[in-house]
Amino acid sequence: MAHQEKATSEVEWRITLGDGSSKSLVPDAGPVSRIWIGLKGLIAGLVLKVWKFLKRAWDIGVDDPRKVIHCLKVGMALTVVSLFYFMRPLYKGVGGNAMWAIMTVVVVFENTVGATICKSLNRVFGTTLAGFLAFGVHWVASQSGQEFEPLITGASVFLLASTATFSRFIPSVKARFDYGAMIFILTFSLVTVSGYRVDKLFDMAHQRISTIIIGTSLCIFVTMFICPIWAGEELHILISRNMDKLANSLDGCVDEHFNYNGELKDSDKQPDKKLLGYKCVLSSKATEESMATFARWEPAHGRFNFKHPWQQYLKIGASMRSCAYCVEALNRCIDSENQASEFTKKHLSNICLKVSSNSSSVMKEVAKTIKTMKRSPSIDFLVEEMRSTVQDLQNELNFLPKLLSPPEVLHPESKETEETTSTTHLLEVIPVVTFASLMIEISSRIQAIVETVEELAELAEFKGEVQDKDKQNQPNTNRIVASQLNDDQQTLKALERV
Amino acid sequence: MAHQEKATSEVEWRITLGDGSSKSLVPDAGPVSRIWIGLKGLIAGLVLKVWKFLKRAWDIGVDDPRKVIHCLKVGMALTVVSLFYFMRPLYKGVGGNAMWAIMTVVVVFENTVGATICKSLNRVFGTTLAGFLAFGVHWVASQSGQEFEPLITGASVFLLASTATFSRFIPSVKARFDYGAMIFILTFSLVTVSGYRVDKLFDMAHQRISTIIIGTSLCIFVTMFICPIWAGEELHILISRNMDKLANSLDGCVDEHFNYNGELKDSDKQPDKKLLGYKCVLSSKATEESMATFARWEPAHGRFNFKHPWQQYLKIGASMRSCAYCVEALNRCIDSENQASEFTKKHLSNICLKVSSNSSSVMKEVAKTIKTMKRSPSIDFLVEEMRSTVQDLQNELNFLPKLLSPPEVLHPESKETEETTSTTHLLEVIPVVTFASLMIEISSRIQAIVETVEELAELAEFKGEVQDKDKQNQPNTNRIVASQLNDDQQTLKALERV
Repeated sequence: MAHQEKATSEVEWRITLGDGSSKSLVPDAGPVSRIWIGLKGLIAGLVLKVWKFLKRAWDIGVDDPRKVIHCLKVGMALTVVSLFYFMRPLYKGVGGNAMWAIMTVVVVFENTVGATICKSLNRVFGTTLAGFLAFGVHWVASQSGQEFEPLITGASVFLLASTATFSRFIPSVKARFDYGAMIFILTFSLVTVSGYRVDKLFDMAHQRISTIIIGTSLCIFVTMFICPIWAGEELHILISRNMDKLANSLDGCVDEHFNYNGELKDSDKQPDKKLLGYKCVLSSKATEESMATFARWEPAHGRFNFKHPWQQYLKIGASMRSCAYCVEALNRCIDSENQASEFTKKHLSNICLKVSSNSSSVMKEVAKTIKTMKRSPSIDFLVEEMRSTVQDLQNELNFLPKLLSPPEVLHPESKETEETTSTTHLLEVIPVVTFASLMIEISSRIQAIVETVEELAELAEFKGEVQDKDKQNQPNTNRIVASQLNDDQQTLKALERV
Repeated sequence: MAHQEKATSEVEWRITLGDGSSKSLVPDAGPVSRIWIGLKGLIAGLVLKVWKFLKRAWDIGVDDPRKVIHCLKVGMALTVVSLFYFMRPLYKGVGGNAMWAIMTVVVVFENTVGATICKSLNRVFGTTLAGFLAFGVHWVASQSGQEFEPLITGASVFLLASTATFSRFIPSVKARFDYGAMIFILTFSLVTVSGYRVDKLFDMAHQRISTIIIGTSLCIFVTMFICPIWAGEELHILISRNMDKLANSLDGCVDEHFNYNGELKDSDKQPDKKLLGYKCVLSSKATEESMATFARWEPAHGRFNFKHPWQQYLKIGASMRSCAYCVEALNRCIDSENQASEFTKKHLSNICLKVSSNSSSVMKEVAKTIKTMKRSPSIDFLVEEMRSTVQDLQNELNFLPKLLSPPEVLHPESKETEETTSTTHLLEVIPVVTFASLMIEISSRIQAIVETVEELAELAEFKGEVQDKDKQNQPNTNRIVASQLNDDQQTLKALERV
């Protein structure tokens, strides 16, 4: 009986194992089996986690193969530096300080050329400056006798370390010399303090600085000449790509709004991906700023001069973000519960779609201008077209109440129905009016983007059709105001005619 | 005659110097004087620049004295570490490797406790792991004969450096172990490569790790026990302060809109400063993220447990930014050229000001909830009040056309005037409608903020009045929809009554 029971439990246990589930259908399964199941689950979970991690890493590598290349570059630079140890003659030259070359390569080698140069120069100058200062302090300390020597050394370390640390809080220093200040503290402390022990201070400092220079030179060489990634070029590409994304996002958003009830067009199959393009614009401020900081350290490369106006890219980025805020608000209009009536929507859909397509084609043209670094011959025309469609939209908005209240015109005597109708209409009109005024706001912000890009074109001397922009700009703005006034007057006249 | 001319020129020269301007009124002033003036200008410019720089530095120190304290802490830690060199017994213990303690202090000491702990642990574990691996590789290399030794060493450096560099691109690694990966590469290269030369490898590694542990312990001690700055607390304060700023910004913005024509209230004397508060919210994403990353490393401190839900603060930050986008759009409404008529504005000003003051008092209450870490007893009431004023605003918007078209009711026969009047009114209404619907959107986003903060209150177990939030929330949302439906129906009924 007992034997039979055991057999049954064993069979059951096998079944449990067989289907792989850990249900508590088998209350008398031994502790071994439980541990086994638990262990299996743990290992499976671990393998899955590692697999997911590797999958993500693989995706990152496939997404941007230059990251993989960067890693190989670091490996190469480090291996080359190791030669200093392997080759005897070189080893005798710089001694045990070859270590500093390795350290320099590890610490200084960055993804972009600008960042590497920035860190390299910071390291070299920080080390040199701190070295000289430390010599001076060491000399003063050694002149002042045995008693005062540790005191002077300690006080100088305390003072200079505090000051240099504080300087890292000042934005202008932080942006450019943050790493240099750290290296300054490091070198100063090391040299001052070891000066107390090591007698061959000068030799040591000399060897250290020379190994650091060897390390930084190697880094700069590798980063600049083997598949270089230029911070400036990255910034340039980022800005023009974000502009495209913003344009697509605007288009997609307006399309979705007016094709809300299943009337999807074939032109956009992935509205979600398109729609979220503006989020890239909103979140890329930090990247843009660091890229612009590093780009200033880069020499002339490709189509960019040494003094390329990188700061202007930040202005373009800011104006794009200001536009993206509006697109965000527009996007939220789609989710809003207060939907406009189909009639109102249909009435305005054509003009709104026209405004959005004109706006986005202006942005795409601007993106092309940045991408190709050539002034566009058609940008003025496109902007003018966008303005005129925006005016059309404004006209449509002005005519809206007339078009919406046909009963009013037909039966002036039926007081109450008329009232109800016109009120209901305003209720239905509110979402559309909000949407449309956001569109108008967006188009005015796009004009601001165009202006910042034109400034860039002037500062960076983009090629293309030569125009006297300065002379044209002033009348242009006057023209807008004038045309708006005209527009309002025309609207009033048109209404009086009816 | 010549003498007289010279005297005149000298007098003129003195006059020019006297008033300090370098106008070219004195064409025959000698080159010496010009150089003198130029030099003076240069020196004055330099002094002015240095003075400005020092002024800014001073302002930074006065603004946040903890920065100054941090600098003094760094200086102190470094001076203490220098004792290892000064005191003979300690020096004999760790030898020349005391250098590593200094280096550790310089590199690891950060502004906040979390960042220091993060870097310290990264440094210790990165060094240890790399040290063990390097030993293994060194052993394998030394077993494989003279020829293969440099080859194996070089290949292992190349492979591991590349892999570790790549791992720094993976977001989850970058957030927590970026510094550890760098230290891993550094130590591995140093130990593997110097293993080829230095025979006393084990001693060296032992000393190095012990000095690093001394350095990190000192850093952690100083940063935690002398005027500590906790990343978590900073994040906590930042979020609640930004919430206040956003509330003030909303208030200021609405006030400015409705008091546009010089009718400024006494309550806000600095509208500019208040208005720009939302910009802090928009730009603090990166700070919030780094604070949250560091806060996870911090032990329990003050009112925060070890497992305080720091990630929830990022959600609150995101919902605040989503609200700030709308405030930005609202702010732009003020600058817009299309101003609403005074009548429309005055009609809506009371209700709009009420909505904004209710909205901002909800936000201020939420900020207080976060600040005090106590559930507010009045938040539900305030939110309900905000909702009801928003509904009042919606009602007002619905009644708007009726109130604006009195001629329509009085003279139904005068067709044309009626048409013109109602159309002109819609034109004037558009900016107000946009403004009001943005206000409605803002209030719905504020509700999203309240929800994220309630989640925080639950996760972090805030004290205060005990309520069964879960049970209340569901009916609440139903209530909104129901009340909105009711509202629409009531509006229609009210209109039918007229």
